[in-house]
Amino acid sequence: METPWQYRFSTRAQAMKSSVIRELLKLTEQPDIISFAGGLPAPEVFPFEAFQRASKKVLTEYGPQALQYGTTEGYAPLRQFIADQMTRPGFEVSASNVLITSGSQQALDLLGIVFINQGDHVLVESPTYLGALQAWNLYGANYVTVKTDHDGMDTADLEAQLRTGPKFIYILPNFQNPMGVTMSLERREQLVQLADKYGIPIVEDDPYMQLRFEGEHLPAVAVIDNKMRGETHCNQSNVIYLSTFSKTLAPGLRIAWVVAPEEVIHKMVTAKQAIDLHTSTFNQYIAYEVARDGFLEEHIKTIIEIYRERRDVMLESFDEYMPAEVSWTKPSGGLFLWVTMPETMDSVAIFEDAVKEKVAFVPGQSFHADGSGKNTFRMNFSNSSPEMIVEGVRRLSIVIRKHLKK
Amino acid sequence: METPWQYRFSTRAQAMKSSVIRELLKLTEQPDIISFAGGLPAPEVFPFEAFQRASKKVLTEYGPQALQYGTTEGYAPLRQFIADQMTRPGFEVSASNVLITSGSQQALDLLGIVFINQGDHVLVESPTYLGALQAWNLYGANYVTVKTDHDGMDTADLEAQLRTGPKFIYILPNFQNPMGVTMSLERREQLVQLADKYGIPIVEDDPYMQLRFEGEHLPAVAVIDNKMRGETHCNQSNVIYLSTFSKTLAPGLRIAWVVAPEEVIHKMVTAKQAIDLHTSTFNQYIAYEVARDGFLEEHIKTIIEIYRERRDVMLESFDEYMPAEVSWTKPSGGLFLWVTMPETMDSVAIFEDAVKEKVAFVPGQSFHADGSGKNTFRMNFSNSSPEMIVEGVRRLSIVIRKHLKK
Repeated sequence: METPWQYRFSTRAQAMKSSVIRELLKLTEQPDIISFAGGLPAPEVFPFEAFQRASKKVLTEYGPQALQYGTTEGYAPLRQFIADQMTRPGFEVSASNVLITSGSQQALDLLGIVFINQGDHVLVESPTYLGALQAWNLYGANYVTVKTDHDGMDTADLEAQLRTGPKFIYILPNFQNPMGVTMSLERREQLVQLADKYGIPIVEDDPYMQLRFEGEHLPAVAVIDNKMRGETHCNQSNVIYLSTFSKTLAPGLRIAWVVAPEEVIHKMVTAKQAIDLHTSTFNQYIAYEVARDGFLEEHIKTIIEIYRERRDVMLESFDEYMPAEVSWTKPSGGLFLWVTMPETMDSVAIFEDAVKEKVAFVPGQSFHADGSGKNTFRMNFSNSSPEMIVEGVRRLSIVIRKHLKK
Repeated sequence: METPWQYRFSTRAQAMKSSVIRELLKLTEQPDIISFAGGLPAPEVFPFEAFQRASKKVLTEYGPQALQYGTTEGYAPLRQFIADQMTRPGFEVSASNVLITSGSQQALDLLGIVFINQGDHVLVESPTYLGALQAWNLYGANYVTVKTDHDGMDTADLEAQLRTGPKFIYILPNFQNPMGVTMSLERREQLVQLADKYGIPIVEDDPYMQLRFEGEHLPAVAVIDNKMRGETHCNQSNVIYLSTFSKTLAPGLRIAWVVAPEEVIHKMVTAKQAIDLHTSTFNQYIAYEVARDGFLEEHIKTIIEIYRERRDVMLESFDEYMPAEVSWTKPSGGLFLWVTMPETMDSVAIFEDAVKEKVAFVPGQSFHADGSGKNTFRMNFSNSSPEMIVEGVRRLSIVIRKHLKK
């Protein structure tokens, strides 16, 4: 008997393409390549000793509970810890406003399940995080886009797009993936006002906030929203806030969270029960033990030192090696910077040549819901040593110069 | 501004009901209750020392990789380990046939994503595992049911239902949840023949297989299928096989797997990338370190000793206390037995009275896709001490006797 599985796949599955970018990135897995492609933290900064202590403590003191099934909502002390961290004057968060997810990617999936009907559209930045597009494509989302520049989403562009009635607005306000830019306070306020005017909810995806290298933290969009509308508790918020331990502790734990009004949390819990029952109890206990008592704040200072140096080295190398036709963002935090070349340039063609020279990045087109961005690409600076960064940017500049001459 | 979230929820989310059973089970969370409700392993059997050794080793020797992002497919040595465990004469499994999932619940979700269009129907046993129904309800599945008795799914009933053209057949052949029954070899062969005749794939969900207390293991349906069709490799299989470490190591890790033809694995990997990127790297490393080198086999012997005693005590208590109108299954493995009362009895009403007497179980209706089973319920024996089992069954028998007199 033949087993013609493909004819049995759902319409949704038949439409799923193995992403072009994923295929490209397989080329970067050679051991001798200098890869600026992944969004990987530096493994040198993982707090191994703190994880050793936490694993031992969790297994000794809480073994029976930590290895057992847990509640879908998440480990209660961890939910309370996150609620406390998130609470600000004018934005009170209770543990019941927090849902622990299996990585932020699952939070994006839950948003798809809970909000997106086939054909609904979501308002996203251009460019935006490609994992969000992948998550929502599963549910048949369409997109309307608003241009993002050095000050984040361009709110001058926003109102016209809001009148199309999107299901929600998706933004990454701090050190945005892929551009590394941060939304200015003025634009955050405009965003909140316009979202309120049209009654459209905001999803604020904020994995990098704590990785600020210089300058002052800006208030979260969720906090600005409550303040502007005279509310004091997260339950009255118009914003669903996402964050994660992946960039501050370790991505291998897959511990992230959603902060939202209870009404939204309840619905997401029902959905999560159906999709993975609950997030690893063991990892929630460990993350809580590592993060508590001020360790997280101290540890983040170490990460910032290292990432700041790498960002500086990358910016200096760009200044030194890149031709005048190329421009790039100057991030004050996070993991990425964003490169724009003349409009005739093709970052996929450059990628292919760059891989031959043993250097890699992510071509920019996949971050654009509207298929634009051919002449752009994303560079990660967190996961390569300063020496590798200098050498990698040098090699890359040679490839780009060749393409400029074509 | 009002934030009327419920009007923004997707049609799918609006149809999601917080399950009745979930609400009922909240009543069983009182500390002084004897609960036979959950499907929980005995925490006394978790191998804490092996987890201590494994955590220490993983963090010392593989820290940078174990805490980093991993591939969607899963940790290569763990995939190979599972492939080796699953390989039998006539059923060769390669690592590329294995996908690691975040618990078996995620494997059920991936089946929904990859196979189920709104309105498709799935052939399930009656009763069947309620988590599967919850997972597939999200994708708008309907169900056709085949009666299950002491020898598993009644294959005499099967052919008529196969002619309705279900997307796949879902079975739990060993110590089925909820009934505790095992499908006989003869019925397994009939199932495979009929599935082949109508070209309908089989999903074999097998979390309890290794927890056999007595008698010989029966061959997996996947193995029988290949043998009957003269195939030798999993890539030619008509069966998608699911299993997990939740019942043999610890559920808190959320490590389970799918074994299937590569064509199916590829599609599931694309879907998994969109829903949670990958399963915790750390937990995959730990599970591999704990399970390898024969530890798993030895550890399972310990579990079996304890569960067998508890099963025996529960059966003896049933013999001693239950009225003649009540019957129950005699499982040779797993975690559950299944109770049938006269047709006029209502297990939800009995549940409510039982909770007042500080004893709990799961009413049977929620395991029935067709809404039948009002006079049935599920009893877990793995998670209570022998003393608790005797006392709990005694209390329960009193409640049942009262209802019999009504």
